[in-house]
Amino acid sequence: MSKKAVVLLSGGLDSATTLVLAQSEGYSCYALSFDYGQRNRTELQAAENIAKRYQVEHKVLRIDLDGIGGSALTDDSIDVPQQLEEGIPVTYVPARNTVFLSLALGWAEVLEADDIFIGVNAVDYSGYPDCRPAFIEAFEQMANLATKAASEGRTIHIRTPLINLSKGQIIEQGMVHRLDYGMTVSCYAADANGAACGTCDSCRLRSKGFVDAGFDDPTRYQQT
Amino acid sequence: MSKKAVVLLSGGLDSATTLVLAQSEGYSCYALSFDYGQRNRTELQAAENIAKRYQVEHKVLRIDLDGIGGSALTDDSIDVPQQLEEGIPVTYVPARNTVFLSLALGWAEVLEADDIFIGVNAVDYSGYPDCRPAFIEAFEQMANLATKAASEGRTIHIRTPLINLSKGQIIEQGMVHRLDYGMTVSCYAADANGAACGTCDSCRLRSKGFVDAGFDDPTRYQQT
Repeated sequence: MSKKAVVLLSGGLDSATTLVLAQSEGYSCYALSFDYGQRNRTELQAAENIAKRYQVEHKVLRIDLDGIGGSALTDDSIDVPQQLEEGIPVTYVPARNTVFLSLALGWAEVLEADDIFIGVNAVDYSGYPDCRPAFIEAFEQMANLATKAASEGRTIHIRTPLINLSKGQIIEQGMVHRLDYGMTVSCYAADANGAACGTCDSCRLRSKGFVDAGFDDPTRYQQT
Repeated sequence: MSKKAVVLLSGGLDSATTLVLAQSEGYSCYALSFDYGQRNRTELQAAENIAKRYQVEHKVLRIDLDGIGGSALTDDSIDVPQQLEEGIPVTYVPARNTVFLSLALGWAEVLEADDIFIGVNAVDYSGYPDCRPAFIEAFEQMANLATKAASEGRTIHIRTPLINLSKGQIIEQGMVHRLDYGMTVSCYAADANGAACGTCDSCRLRSKGFVDAGFDDPTRYQQT
């Protein structure tokens, strides 16, 4: 039986790349998505399509991050910015990766999986504190004290294959495994069909990534 | 303005004691409960009653721990044991305190609260890995790398006033502040009115606590 891994799958470019990289290492993958009141609902549909394409079990957990508020990605009263910001963006969701990794840890324990893959990236999103290597290391240390599995001698590894890659390098990695990036949605303001705005932070980073990697951008953009 | 704290409030004896201890230190408290598919639904009602009595804002977040499974407290296919077990009990919920503290961390960040109180106890529940001081310290370290607040110089403290107390000592602390323990529910198998079974692990520990502390037990037990 192949070794198991939980893979956080948002439906975006980074997490889809992470999934194909985990599969290429021989893991039997269990994809985990969250319905946390995000405005971008088409991301979840993309996650479902990707999980189906790669024939992995897919769980969508509903959590109330919208009940906590504080981010432009969940709070209708905060505008999604159209320009790259200085410092930590308003699209930062409080403690998001901590919450996601915690739930992944619970599922990993039930599945007896020792690896959790997350597509965080410290290069293009250096504004997010919970995308930094120091955070990931601290989470891993905590995780190895948190669980019954850990007290029984198993070791959890938080795997971040994209953490030091540029967007262009991430795309190059995915293309090695023939990932169809047209299935992924990155836009903060995608329409109901998953078509991207082309102007938000996330669209610009993505578009630049395809240019840097030297591949055609398969993103469907909204007709204006 | 008084300093703010998020207090995890399950509706049980320990968390109610933690709430009154936090208030006695002068914190303006924000109580956080979770609806995680627990069989014991009356605990949530107890949490609501306690929050009302102590006039604190109370948020109940729904999370899908039942979707993950693996515990007698959420999974109908696992029996709740009637005797104290060796090792880690089947009532252990995978990564529960990690998930709860993570969501508390998110709310604390939005509230600009620097303290999170949790009524974990390493004495009577030493079987639970996520109740040990080493886990709490590791979580605190991780939390201080996880958030925007932390990168802006704020420090999060995970406060565990009960961690080294016996059940009897916990009750003594609560009684100093005239906590009405009749409002709290500890039983794993309480009935719809919050009456306790009197025989599960949790009932026995609680009952012994009142004996040890030398107070009458105000628990309502089921009529048999």
